Amino acid sequence: MMSQPNIASVVADDRLIERSKYYCKSEVLAQAQKEMVNYKSTGVSVMELSHRSSDFTKILTGAENNLRKLLNIPNNYKVIFLQGGGTGQFSALPLNLLALKPSMSADYVVTGSWSAKAAQEAAKYGKVNLVLPKTKKYTDIPDPSTWTLNPEASYLYYCANETIHGVEFQHIPEFCGVPLIADMSSNILTRDIDVSKFGAIFAGAQKNIGCAGVTLVIIREDLIGKALPICPIIFDFQVQVGNNSLYNTPPTYSIYIMGLVFEWILEQGGVAKMEEWAIKKSSAVYDVIDSSNGFYVCPLDKGCRSRMNIPFRIGSAQGDEALEKKFIQEAENAKLISLKGHRNVKRSVS
Amino acid sequence: MMSQPNIASVVADDRLIERSKYYCKSEVLAQAQKEMVNYKSTGVSVMELSHRSSDFTKILTGAENNLRKLLNIPNNYKVIFLQGGGTGQFSALPLNLLALKPSMSADYVVTGSWSAKAAQEAAKYGKVNLVLPKTKKYTDIPDPSTWTLNPEASYLYYCANETIHGVEFQHIPEFCGVPLIADMSSNILTRDIDVSKFGAIFAGAQKNIGCAGVTLVIIREDLIGKALPICPIIFDFQVQVGNNSLYNTPPTYSIYIMGLVFEWILEQGGVAKMEEWAIKKSSAVYDVIDSSNGFYVCPLDKGCRSRMNIPFRIGSAQGDEALEKKFIQEAENAKLISLKGHRNVKRSVS
Repeated sequence: MMSQPNIASVVADDRLIERSKYYCKSEVLAQAQKEMVNYKSTGVSVMELSHRSSDFTKILTGAENNLRKLLNIPNNYKVIFLQGGGTGQFSALPLNLLALKPSMSADYVVTGSWSAKAAQEAAKYGKVNLVLPKTKKYTDIPDPSTWTLNPEASYLYYCANETIHGVEFQHIPEFCGVPLIADMSSNILTRDIDVSKFGAIFAGAQKNIGCAGVTLVIIREDLIGKALPICPIIFDFQVQVGNNSLYNTPPTYSIYIMGLVFEWILEQGGVAKMEEWAIKKSSAVYDVIDSSNGFYVCPLDKGCRSRMNIPFRIGSAQGDEALEKKFIQEAENAKLISLKGHRNVKRSVS
Repeated sequence: MMSQPNIASVVADDRLIERSKYYCKSEVLAQAQKEMVNYKSTGVSVMELSHRSSDFTKILTGAENNLRKLLNIPNNYKVIFLQGGGTGQFSALPLNLLALKPSMSADYVVTGSWSAKAAQEAAKYGKVNLVLPKTKKYTDIPDPSTWTLNPEASYLYYCANETIHGVEFQHIPEFCGVPLIADMSSNILTRDIDVSKFGAIFAGAQKNIGCAGVTLVIIREDLIGKALPICPIIFDFQVQVGNNSLYNTPPTYSIYIMGLVFEWILEQGGVAKMEEWAIKKSSAVYDVIDSSNGFYVCPLDKGCRSRMNIPFRIGSAQGDEALEKKFIQEAENAKLISLKGHRNVKRSVS
């Protein structure tokens, strides 16, 4: 059975593409290792620098400036570095933005587990309108003609790439000037985007741009200042923007690592180069799936296939348990680890 | 004028005491450096480990178990590792605990900037009773006979050590079985405490036990499960306890560093040894202050002097600007950096 084209072999053999990933990892980590006990002749580790010291200020400002270059962020957008991950932002966004309009209502485009969780959390603080027709599966993006959008919504929310189910937007879903909020945790800096089309963009660092513990928020300045009175102060965008992310002690070391990743991406050629690699890497896998005569099955509509995470089953659409087990084993032999699907896939899809 | 006994010299000369600090720093950071690109032969950095991998689970469990040993934490207490720092807990605690009693009220003992901020944040969510008589200065702990405590309070809150003003409790302020909550961010693991006297203890890591980005919460299990409906899910103790701190991606690298610090403290002899060193180090400085005939002035009552951070002025109670500038310079020459007081001291005291 395994004489079929093998995804693991294709990925493992694609030296050119693999090397790019390897370089990021080894170069950034090697620099962090070198500087661990003595950062730029300060005699101390970045972990020991006061978050108000001039040395750390340079790290923070450097990371922000490089991100601004990478995404060409307009001047009327603020950049802040917070704690709490994407899940923290599921609360922070409604707490900061629901009061933008009297409706106290927000539109949520639910295309997978993460946007579903975000919508559930927002419902604690205001009215949530689920934009898409009800579905039990997350394998496509229904045609915009079927969406029930509210022009009076305080904001329109979507997840640009669903890490578990693999639905990735290939376009920006704009609507009637309603501020658009995007969770880009798992595809930030892999697509050239026009930031001016967004009200806010957020991203937990651990997928694409650093280590767990820091969350990036890019927000248009006119949307700041309407936090609900019950908003925890660490999530109040006005407070954090006003203090340049230093209202409380920020996750200094995680910001340092993120800054190193931004530098590395700039050196490679920026977002355009990351996008080129993402297309090459994902196409190599999708090509094998599409030419396997149904041996590999990707449940996703072609129009919303993720370049970041590619869910597929083996043997049939439901998956043949023995074949999938064998695949995981052969992949591990080829040093491709952690390919087993997310524990939530079956539960969420069913 | 500087022929007076000099605090900087005393501290710099105290080789025995200085060495203990030096060892922690160099041993923990050296190990982190060694393991940065290849953690225990996994071939990857701790930053790259999935937070659900068996390797990271060992790090998390190891850190918890060592903390339980260090503080002798009873079995009916849960330990969780969160994001958001102490300031995040200023919100999380009332959101989780105010509803413990119908009063929706909490008692706050305000002895400095940090407990003042905590009380201010709690007032967003319920009734806050300020226990101490009003004061404009934070230099003492008023006699308990002057406290206005509420036996119906959902909890009693205090800051065990005020990092800016230097007020440290030398005893545990128990009252009528009201659950006692302590912010131990800046003195955790430097005193032998009886955890069973507390409802909850929390500590941001960056002062005593690691790097910024992770916050420790120790909580008695019967207090869990009463979060207000508006509590952000990342702060819901029941959710985080139920998921062993893994509801969302935790700050994995910061937890790893905290685990290394716990191991180091155990190797030195545990909390008793840290307490011995804290007494030795702080006494060396207070002795100079007390024998300087008013040249050095510590504004604190002797009964609440912090062993962690020692505020003092030079020349007079208000401080002589020129002398203080000279002191900072001479201290830096002796490689004692960042001795300048917190930017908030003057503002808060006045």
